[in-house]
Amino acid sequence: MSAQKNIRIDERVLSDNDHIAGQLRLRFAEQGTLVVNLISSPGSGKTSLLEATVRTLGKDFRTGSVVGDIATERDADRLRALGIPASQILTGGACHLDARLVKAALGRGGFEWLDFLFIENVGNLICPTAYDLGEDFKVALLSVAEGDDKPLKYPGIFSRAAVTIITKTDLLPHVSFDLDRVRAEIRALNPTGTILAASARSGDGIRDWCALLRDRLASKVSIASEVV
Amino acid sequence: MSAQKNIRIDERVLSDNDHIAGQLRLRFAEQGTLVVNLISSPGSGKTSLLEATVRTLGKDFRTGSVVGDIATERDADRLRALGIPASQILTGGACHLDARLVKAALGRGGFEWLDFLFIENVGNLICPTAYDLGEDFKVALLSVAEGDDKPLKYPGIFSRAAVTIITKTDLLPHVSFDLDRVRAEIRALNPTGTILAASARSGDGIRDWCALLRDRLASKVSIASEVV
Repeated sequence: MSAQKNIRIDERVLSDNDHIAGQLRLRFAEQGTLVVNLISSPGSGKTSLLEATVRTLGKDFRTGSVVGDIATERDADRLRALGIPASQILTGGACHLDARLVKAALGRGGFEWLDFLFIENVGNLICPTAYDLGEDFKVALLSVAEGDDKPLKYPGIFSRAAVTIITKTDLLPHVSFDLDRVRAEIRALNPTGTILAASARSGDGIRDWCALLRDRLASKVSIASEVV
Repeated sequence: MSAQKNIRIDERVLSDNDHIAGQLRLRFAEQGTLVVNLISSPGSGKTSLLEATVRTLGKDFRTGSVVGDIATERDADRLRALGIPASQILTGGACHLDARLVKAALGRGGFEWLDFLFIENVGNLICPTAYDLGEDFKVALLSVAEGDDKPLKYPGIFSRAAVTIITKTDLLPHVSFDLDRVRAEIRALNPTGTILAASARSGDGIRDWCALLRDRLASKVSIASEVV
């Protein structure tokens, strides 16, 4: 029942972005693809997390990625090196992806019938927050090197992300970062969100993150089959 | 001669922002205040650098700050704790400061006849780049924890910043960061820019940064007195 609500395109007059995001969401539901929109500052470790994720899930699942950047193909190149389809969107000056850009990137082919599509947004903790890309959920990344005062300073993303991942935990011994304080601030902004801690470098927490992804994919596919 | 060019407000039709930035630049020139616009990702260490700067320069110079954030007064509170005037601008959702906001913040008083005014922009490597705030120069910060691939991925700011500071150098033993590669990429984008490396935590490089500030202030005051 609740899946129908997700799949049905709302009848109200949608903005252009929401309209295209709705089309994408319908397509992803039909394909049985779980779509994750990763948002963080530059250098919080989005691409490194995706590399570790693809290495863990790639044996059993079909994964692909769409990567937004102001300039360079560096991030997509890193993901293509793992043998997965990766479409780089160069936004020029624009500080976020929108649904139209994602739709165009997927049109280049190779993204049909994936189990997981990871959308790596432009490195920016602010602008991407408001744009629906047809994803199942948003993931916010915050590296321990960025400081433990960030959730309340950037409430938009931390209140909307279904999952927050505290990254680069291997650096915890070398920085001043109170993990409990950050967890408490995120919970205050977002009581139903999930908070994970991980390090792509040490492998810490990658298993929990991949288990969450597998669970959410199983739920999505199971609900979609009920609707059919 | 060149100072007159800086001080004179251009006669062409300026955009609103450029027009107000021009007014601010004239005011700062009359006051003999050197104005620095600091731009970086969230968590690159802008406030920590300013704390170290105020501790070093505060004995001999009058310093003040204007701090932009989406939400919270956390950064301004840290600077006020050092006894300097610090005006917090809360932008709501806006991802950058503009000249109008800075003018309004200065209108609250306490910023007349400073030697140094530090404008700490909203944590964002993209949006603040294009906005003139009446500053003498922009400073880009890049922490070693963010990764050494960033300059070419965010060419706007690294090509426009007169000074780039590689921050958190105390973390260099714990991260993969090729300082020479970063220096080469920044020089390719910005051949005349100055590149410094610093750690507010260890104190590394703070003396060089403060020496640069003193030199630029001396040049500005000396040029202004020639014009008068």
